[in-house]
Amino acid sequence: VSLAFVAIGDELLTGRVLDRHLLQVGRDLAMHGLSLRSARVVPDDVSAIQSALDAESAAGARSVVLTGGLGPTPDDMTREGVAAWAGAPLELHAVAHEQVLRQVALRHREPVDADVRLATLPKGAAVLPNSVGTAPGFHLVGPTGLEIWALPGVPAEFRRMWLGEVLPRLRVGSEQHVALQVLRTSGAGEREVADRIASLFARPDCRLGTYAGEGEVEVHVAVEAAGPLVAEERLTARVAEVRLRLGDLVHGEGDEALAEAVARRLGQRGETLATAESVTGGLLASLLTDVPGSSAWFLGGAVAYSVGHKTRQLGLDPELVARAGHVSPEVSRAMARQARALHGATWGLATTGWAGPDGGRPGEEAGLVHLALEGPDGLCGSWTHRFPGVDRPSVKLRAARAALRALWLAMGLQS
Amino acid sequence: VSLAFVAIGDELLTGRVLDRHLLQVGRDLAMHGLSLRSARVVPDDVSAIQSALDAESAAGARSVVLTGGLGPTPDDMTREGVAAWAGAPLELHAVAHEQVLRQVALRHREPVDADVRLATLPKGAAVLPNSVGTAPGFHLVGPTGLEIWALPGVPAEFRRMWLGEVLPRLRVGSEQHVALQVLRTSGAGEREVADRIASLFARPDCRLGTYAGEGEVEVHVAVEAAGPLVAEERLTARVAEVRLRLGDLVHGEGDEALAEAVARRLGQRGETLATAESVTGGLLASLLTDVPGSSAWFLGGAVAYSVGHKTRQLGLDPELVARAGHVSPEVSRAMARQARALHGATWGLATTGWAGPDGGRPGEEAGLVHLALEGPDGLCGSWTHRFPGVDRPSVKLRAARAALRALWLAMGLQS
Repeated sequence: VSLAFVAIGDELLTGRVLDRHLLQVGRDLAMHGLSLRSARVVPDDVSAIQSALDAESAAGARSVVLTGGLGPTPDDMTREGVAAWAGAPLELHAVAHEQVLRQVALRHREPVDADVRLATLPKGAAVLPNSVGTAPGFHLVGPTGLEIWALPGVPAEFRRMWLGEVLPRLRVGSEQHVALQVLRTSGAGEREVADRIASLFARPDCRLGTYAGEGEVEVHVAVEAAGPLVAEERLTARVAEVRLRLGDLVHGEGDEALAEAVARRLGQRGETLATAESVTGGLLASLLTDVPGSSAWFLGGAVAYSVGHKTRQLGLDPELVARAGHVSPEVSRAMARQARALHGATWGLATTGWAGPDGGRPGEEAGLVHLALEGPDGLCGSWTHRFPGVDRPSVKLRAARAALRALWLAMGLQS
Repeated sequence: VSLAFVAIGDELLTGRVLDRHLLQVGRDLAMHGLSLRSARVVPDDVSAIQSALDAESAAGARSVVLTGGLGPTPDDMTREGVAAWAGAPLELHAVAHEQVLRQVALRHREPVDADVRLATLPKGAAVLPNSVGTAPGFHLVGPTGLEIWALPGVPAEFRRMWLGEVLPRLRVGSEQHVALQVLRTSGAGEREVADRIASLFARPDCRLGTYAGEGEVEVHVAVEAAGPLVAEERLTARVAEVRLRLGDLVHGEGDEALAEAVARRLGQRGETLATAESVTGGLLASLLTDVPGSSAWFLGGAVAYSVGHKTRQLGLDPELVARAGHVSPEVSRAMARQARALHGATWGLATTGWAGPDGGRPGEEAGLVHLALEGPDGLCGSWTHRFPGVDRPSVKLRAARAALRALWLAMGLQS
């Protein structure tokens, strides 16, 4: 199966917008045992679209996924480009028109001329429904047998239609069903994660992929089988094996961020959290408050960036701060204790460190981080991390994720 | 001039890495009056690279910018692909080898076999020096006259070599010099920014581009002239005109973020800042602490996510909170006053609001934000913003940027 991806839009070539769809398409195809032979970006121009499709056809592509250029404005030329390439006239498509009018009605507005354009598709095209926006996508098999899947460029629309309408059908011809699960890990680098599951990579019926982010690594697990139920059953078994190897590196599944995993455990236990941050400078609180409903369990935080804040607002002993240094395990522990006490929270989580570019005393280079967690039974622990050679925002993000991970683990140990 | 961009790398097609270079290349070319006719991504494969170059040559491209695949590992095939396309044998390039050995020495390690590969280039290639990494780039004119500019994919290396070595030479043949400046604005959407400078777009000797981010809009100004000094002089005049139209929407130049502009003004004045955040949940403090050296002027912040925090830690009057509601101009003003007082800071900056998905009382929909700023002369003001239909992290970011902007403006008014 030879597949190609074509993103259409002047804005993608003039630095106005970054195409992110290729990332998703590439990743999803890999998990389904498929791969792209090429990807390209072309302007909103009939002949450019035509040449790109001619080139893919000549190169032996079976399917081309197109994104963008399906909107109502005059610069949206994807329908025209595909029609010209296929030698198929554009005509008002009844099913498409009905869908457009339904979406227009949902938006409480009157239909306009531009809405008709959205439903004017190359003759012979089949509609790909868009449940999120007004512009339908379409599927067309061209004269050379090359099939086109045209999808809107709007991210939410593209994502849903790609996963729901296109990806499953790119596998037509294969008798196999694919079941896929994403595990999210933290606390180890991509190499360690890949090493732990290395022997599982050899299984012919199971595909694994690792994708590294800042302090997080995603593991994608895909299983093929003759039927969907068998595939799901096997996936469950494979995921259990992967989880066994990875142990408590795994903090969540699917799209769930680490802060959401923490929120889920706090919610289940009916517990609350307060933070006292130095090195993370508010980022830890910000990750927590990105979670909808966080006001139910996040009582508040201090960004104790000055010694005065640490002693006066948090009530730390000035002598301790002077003796241990404001970047120290001792001070991080005292901050965690005070954060918990001041708010009457179940948990108090604290960070200190040097975000850089400068460090502190000898041995305290930029990237040195001390974390501490205080819980219902007193101090749960304090941890030291080193993130050398990393810029300021990255030190903050890695430190904040390490802190979230410490809390998540502590709740797991207790339950 | 017909230009094309080709990114090379399996990882770009399998969802492991997103190509961001296209964004920069497109934007920079637009400001120099040039544009890409296409962009494509191909795998690390000799024949795929060869076909892409054949296709660009057949389509009449004059120059192709290649990125990636210049590393030392066996999957890096760009040198081989270009050599095969040009019919030029690979040979050790003396100048390139010298540069590689110099970079190796800078890294305090011994040369290895793989280093030789880095300097093995198609016969006839000219070296493009890499001052940041070990892999040199190269320039080659192929048999059909198509010229290749091959650059490493590593972002810091690509960026420097693109701006320093390639972009200026893509304009060879033109007698004109280009001078470019980036202005950063906040406080208005892209349409308003574009409208204010609309009549300047018509000038033949000046190119303007607007690029929208979350709560920020960049304006790129480029000027062409026969000599570099004349170009710089004209640029200064055009930038002054643009600044005049945009007034205090402009907060900085080049890469300077809004928080850095705030930091610059605080530093100049020897003043300090404390924050009290509700709706922004720590993000405001985090943007401020992203700035190197922020501990000199950022005294600390409270993430007052609960009513208890607002009254107990910040010392707000419980009756006021109950009467006005914890999301209200009154409470944001009291928070700003207390943030300033508790820390003895020059400025106190506060945010309240509904980040969503839920809002508050009738009329208080998600995205409603109240900001307040207290300064040396008492309350500077409080402001209400509405960011409807925007997700939680975006409400937080826009509110935080609006707060930074309020502070930045207040310091400007005083000076």
